[in-house]
Amino acid sequence: MEAWNGCRNLEKKNIQSIYVGSQSERYEHQIVYGSVVADWLGLLPSGSLRVEGCAASGALALRLGILEIISGISDVVLVGGLEKMSDRSVNQVTDALMSAGDSVLEQYNGLTYPSIYGMMATSHASKYGSTEEDLASVAVKNHKNAMDNSKAHIRKIISKEDVLNSRVVASPLKLYDSSPISDGAAVAILTKPEIASKFSDYPTFIVGMGHKSDTIGLYEREDISWPRAMAEACSEAYKMAGIEPREVSVAEVHDAFTINEILAYETAGFAKRGNGHLLLHDSQTEIGGKIPVNPSGGLKARGHPIGATGICQVYEIHNQLIGNCGKRQVSGARLGLTMNEGGTYAVAAAHVISAE
Amino acid sequence: MEAWNGCRNLEKKNIQSIYVGSQSERYEHQIVYGSVVADWLGLLPSGSLRVEGCAASGALALRLGILEIISGISDVVLVGGLEKMSDRSVNQVTDALMSAGDSVLEQYNGLTYPSIYGMMATSHASKYGSTEEDLASVAVKNHKNAMDNSKAHIRKIISKEDVLNSRVVASPLKLYDSSPISDGAAVAILTKPEIASKFSDYPTFIVGMGHKSDTIGLYEREDISWPRAMAEACSEAYKMAGIEPREVSVAEVHDAFTINEILAYETAGFAKRGNGHLLLHDSQTEIGGKIPVNPSGGLKARGHPIGATGICQVYEIHNQLIGNCGKRQVSGARLGLTMNEGGTYAVAAAHVISAE
Repeated sequence: MEAWNGCRNLEKKNIQSIYVGSQSERYEHQIVYGSVVADWLGLLPSGSLRVEGCAASGALALRLGILEIISGISDVVLVGGLEKMSDRSVNQVTDALMSAGDSVLEQYNGLTYPSIYGMMATSHASKYGSTEEDLASVAVKNHKNAMDNSKAHIRKIISKEDVLNSRVVASPLKLYDSSPISDGAAVAILTKPEIASKFSDYPTFIVGMGHKSDTIGLYEREDISWPRAMAEACSEAYKMAGIEPREVSVAEVHDAFTINEILAYETAGFAKRGNGHLLLHDSQTEIGGKIPVNPSGGLKARGHPIGATGICQVYEIHNQLIGNCGKRQVSGARLGLTMNEGGTYAVAAAHVISAE
Repeated sequence: MEAWNGCRNLEKKNIQSIYVGSQSERYEHQIVYGSVVADWLGLLPSGSLRVEGCAASGALALRLGILEIISGISDVVLVGGLEKMSDRSVNQVTDALMSAGDSVLEQYNGLTYPSIYGMMATSHASKYGSTEEDLASVAVKNHKNAMDNSKAHIRKIISKEDVLNSRVVASPLKLYDSSPISDGAAVAILTKPEIASKFSDYPTFIVGMGHKSDTIGLYEREDISWPRAMAEACSEAYKMAGIEPREVSVAEVHDAFTINEILAYETAGFAKRGNGHLLLHDSQTEIGGKIPVNPSGGLKARGHPIGATGICQVYEIHNQLIGNCGKRQVSGARLGLTMNEGGTYAVAAAHVISAE
């Protein structure tokens, strides 16, 4: 695996297949994004397709590219993701996103994603004692990290008070608990480990992957504070990589709202179930902490162009593992984790990436 | 590969991964169909995703399932497709379908799919002399074939005069040159050849596959009467299977409009480029002819629930190869071809399936 910026000797003819993650046709009234991207990048007539798992679309494109490489069908594959959301109103974006919820009961009854994640946050607070201050700590950390990321959507220091005083979107989630509406795209080039050095002096290696599903509706879950698919996808990825959670040096996780990052600490195994918020009390997930999370700024501040997010995570981890992150570099990072989920954690994909 | 109806000893826990082809979120305001299907079929927490390449979505789901099997990641995979289009008006369906066209120029200028394929038909007629009677012959044949298919959407004999006298949709294409707006779903179970006999007494074998892309816009093509991606996908599939076009016993092809079937004869190599319509003059593509095409009734009469179509084709070929097609059985069928395309042939996938 190798990001564009580190590639050499790569010609268009090398790329045998194109996988593109994209969430909704409502933003640009466009589908068949595989062909659009293949066309615009000059990669025709290579085979292409679009994969969709809402906000997990990017990680799913990555997974498919890996399967194609492992299968031996292709030697070099481009995986990417994109979304251009800013041409639509907030109401249109909310509507497009909510198509990932259960259409029969949840959409019909007026649920939106802030309200779904607000209920998950309320459940977590009620069962485990997490607070609005804990949620705010996630936003403060990720905004701080994004200050050193030139590709971040929002580069602005915020205080815990800024978050707590921002207007309520869906209680307990407020404006600064929420990721922005972003435009963006990202790609990664995958190849076989045996020939990676032909295309890059700094390849990194995907050593584990996991992919699980859950009910489309939140109302069908036994425990709405536990994203089972995400936890099981991480376990599967760790098992394939042959590692334990404590061996992870750095992680990029799905903080569409601040509660999602706290749940990620738990599903990744960085904290026990119910204890995610405790990691924030002694800054364990800051750069320099025990397990730095979202050094890029995360969805919260790097931005969340839905289909691109999973590949943006890979881009950050790749750069962390090759020591290319400047002021936000996690010292000595050797093993990275990406966690990407779509719908109400209805589909989740995790990848473990190694420096060697 | 094995259709549901022939499976035995298959338990839900055997299915490790789910791929679902679906075209548009506009029909049901629903995305993340991988999880929806996994949930409704009781297959959680297996990993799932939705793949989209407009009308090629079904064949792309098949392709991904094959990659997962070849990669060795899973032993049993479910691939399927679905679309529920009938709850929307014709205008809404036209709008949803046209999102597969180029948004910048083609959509903006008011093109629709009947008009795009109408232009391709006009170009073919102008260059090669195909006629409206030739187009009508395709519709007459496929309606006749569907009479013996209990799963067909439209079971109604039509005459060439019926087609020629039906109202013009986009000249030269008329109502009876067009496939209907259908609801439908299809699935297939894939497994490794070595263990196929565990799950079925009548497995069939995918021995070749091809997948290519073309420009998203028709206006970008050198020759609008030549669907290059479909031709190259077939060539790739034949090459992998180690066969020539003349060895194919039966084919299911993408006749969204009658012109598409004539182009399929050429891109499949059943006729030389420009000579597709000539096969109709001596009934070569009827059941009992030299190369029977669309014995199921095709998209034209079996129906065209967009995301399901590619898997419906596989279902028919599987049943043809195991001799399960009753009155519409192609005698002695040993090798079948499926051809599925999406957008304006912007993405195309072909599969060669063998009885042994």
